[in-house]
Amino acid sequence: MAGTNRSKHVSHDGPVVILVEPQLMENVGAAARAMANFGLSEMRIVNPRETFPSETATTFAAGAGYVLEAARVFATVEEAISDLGFIAAATARERGQAKPVAGPEAVMRDAAAAIATGARAGIMFGRERAGLHNAEVALADVIMTFAVNPAYASLNLAQAVLLAGSVWWNQKIAGALPFSMPEKSPPASRAELLNFFAHLEGELDEAGFFRSAEKRHSMTINLRNIFQRMPLSQQDLNTLHGVVASLVKGRRDRTHRRERNILKPLDIPPDET
Amino acid sequence: MAGTNRSKHVSHDGPVVILVEPQLMENVGAAARAMANFGLSEMRIVNPRETFPSETATTFAAGAGYVLEAARVFATVEEAISDLGFIAAATARERGQAKPVAGPEAVMRDAAAAIATGARAGIMFGRERAGLHNAEVALADVIMTFAVNPAYASLNLAQAVLLAGSVWWNQKIAGALPFSMPEKSPPASRAELLNFFAHLEGELDEAGFFRSAEKRHSMTINLRNIFQRMPLSQQDLNTLHGVVASLVKGRRDRTHRRERNILKPLDIPPDET
Repeated sequence: MAGTNRSKHVSHDGPVVILVEPQLMENVGAAARAMANFGLSEMRIVNPRETFPSETATTFAAGAGYVLEAARVFATVEEAISDLGFIAAATARERGQAKPVAGPEAVMRDAAAAIATGARAGIMFGRERAGLHNAEVALADVIMTFAVNPAYASLNLAQAVLLAGSVWWNQKIAGALPFSMPEKSPPASRAELLNFFAHLEGELDEAGFFRSAEKRHSMTINLRNIFQRMPLSQQDLNTLHGVVASLVKGRRDRTHRRERNILKPLDIPPDET
Repeated sequence: MAGTNRSKHVSHDGPVVILVEPQLMENVGAAARAMANFGLSEMRIVNPRETFPSETATTFAAGAGYVLEAARVFATVEEAISDLGFIAAATARERGQAKPVAGPEAVMRDAAAAIATGARAGIMFGRERAGLHNAEVALADVIMTFAVNPAYASLNLAQAVLLAGSVWWNQKIAGALPFSMPEKSPPASRAELLNFFAHLEGELDEAGFFRSAEKRHSMTINLRNIFQRMPLSQQDLNTLHGVVASLVKGRRDRTHRRERNILKPLDIPPDET
């Protein structure tokens, strides 16, 4: 690929995004941003309707201007795809062509397989209004289409690029998320959990929460299941011990402050179990 | 949900999209379009910065105005989510909260499970610049985040809605694509394929394509594998028979027209095999 602008931002391990005769530079810019979101860096533009480079495109790229700076303009689709070994054509409409149709997941797997052999891969996106012409679709190895609501199937150009890019990136990083729940404390052991239940149920016994000995059994099962539904850390249990102790202390303080003959409402309504 | 505007376009089987203090009506409109693309119909807007309803939003909704017409505005997040049984908070940043973090696939599976029990589910999206506040994230059951390029993680609000919607719709329809390759003709039988090979190789024999008897064996294996790599229909084979016959006829006609003493070049260069 002699002549490509290999800036430091531009890596060539993803498929090329080919915009065929895009009409609006807003969409070219938004497509560049979508590419940057998902680690795609090489844009090729075939015969844009408006002048490119374009300030409007740069504005809509919102910081992903490096994609636009490295983008190349071609006069024809054939020139834009000449070095590619695997090509998908994005289209929302059935074309009646005897060409495989696949969703972005399968297409990106095939693109990655082609790239792994040393080939370049590319995805063609058509004009905002009319999409790709049939003769352009015919140049591709596969038709890529998105599962959309048939009652409202009109995807914006940049959004189509975004969906394709998202699938590429998810496959590339194998679904790893940028962050996860912080592990501040190891999970509580079962002994620690039972210790908490003993604390809680002891205080509830004292507070008269369990209305009868027969009810106590089923009520403690329900109660334990509530807490066991959540994965609790040691720190969570420390917090919960504190909550129980504090509620008991507050009640005792209040009881102490109040006259002994005033009936104290239960902290937890018993019919919640 | 008394009071909800149930227009004919609005189905309530998907999660509610809650936009918390959106700044730009362009994004509210584009989010409505993204929702329509993926069969989501109920938008709730908390304290928008600009006036809503909004002509700008309607323009950017591009035909998905019915989502905006049914949208309701709330003063606080708490009011907007009060009837929901499952809530995810979309955020691109780690929050240090002891709350599960999941990608859109897992979140939408959980949302569907909640909906299946009769509950309503919702996804909260924050302000364009600042996202959701920590206290708002704390209201959710789960933090939803997207796998994005860490070097360029800034997702537009409507694009985040689009990605979430896409995952919802894909799970709802189990990945079914809106169309597939037309099956115009049944696949060729093995006998039909061998018949074509016999036709092709017979003509190639006559044309002197195989340079020697020893080479013929490996060359026919290569040649047959080329055709067997593609799934061929009966119609494809008819076309290929026609191609071979036509090439042969063209050569014979040319040979006939030319003087007998002029050497005829082979139609297919033999070193291509």
